[in-house]
Amino acid sequence: MPDRLAFLLGTWRGTGRGDYPTIEPFEYREEVVFGSVPTKPFVTYLQRTTDPDGAPLHAESGYLRSPTETTAELVVAQPTGVAEVHAGTLAGTTLVLASTGVLLTPTAKEVAAVGRRLEVTGDVLRYELDMAAVGQDLQFHLEAELTRV
Amino acid sequence: MPDRLAFLLGTWRGTGRGDYPTIEPFEYREEVVFGSVPTKPFVTYLQRTTDPDGAPLHAESGYLRSPTETTAELVVAQPTGVAEVHAGTLAGTTLVLASTGVLLTPTAKEVAAVGRRLEVTGDVLRYELDMAAVGQDLQFHLEAELTRV
Repeated sequence: MPDRLAFLLGTWRGTGRGDYPTIEPFEYREEVVFGSVPTKPFVTYLQRTTDPDGAPLHAESGYLRSPTETTAELVVAQPTGVAEVHAGTLAGTTLVLASTGVLLTPTAKEVAAVGRRLEVTGDVLRYELDMAAVGQDLQFHLEAELTRV
Repeated sequence: MPDRLAFLLGTWRGTGRGDYPTIEPFEYREEVVFGSVPTKPFVTYLQRTTDPDGAPLHAESGYLRSPTETTAELVVAQPTGVAEVHAGTLAGTTLVLASTGVLLTPTAKEVAAVGRRLEVTGDVLRYELDMAAVGQDLQFHLEAELTRV
């Protein structure tokens, strides 16, 4: 893993909120784990959310790469039958990513595009996720604030 | 998780071999973990391989779904910058999957299509993986035999 991704490593927990024109606003709890593998140039990514009572909601897993000092790439699989591939920029401890492609299994809900912005300040990680899905334009869907535990 | 996917659950370890026209044949050790999440209709999938001396080689993670009694869907993320979405069949404890799409990050190696066949007999899991990549036709790439530990 390039040293410039080390700011992500660890287990992060916190809360977030979601909204979208087709659903009711909701709150969630989240755990994210970023890890590394010896000699390998990527960061592993595992994420799970629950509702405020602990019932499982979303999950996703994948890998983050930083092929050059200022660029980043993300590959994410989701159990809803969605795979996202992102490209974007790394500036200090801020990642700005936009999907370059989204794949769906035959029974997945239609997701067309996703934007992700993630910023770490010390032991606090904040992200926002925009989504174009089910016929809606790209717009706010999720934001959360997590603390490294 | 549907009961019909329960045959996958657990941690599996074993060895495999790989070959492709563009590389030298190689052997590898592998660990696969299939897990479940309460109330959720999918199986989680985590995989890592090393060379025979323990140096990390490949990794991938994702989710397996079985929307009907005889169908299956797989979403996989790979740290090489590749995302695969598969659809196929479930018959007893045999999964036969073909990629319906492959996404690549800007710096990923070109993978065009992947076929996966996985069969569990008791505590033994065998799989074969065919791949079309870097201009080559779909053909044998990997096979392994793992034991539930």
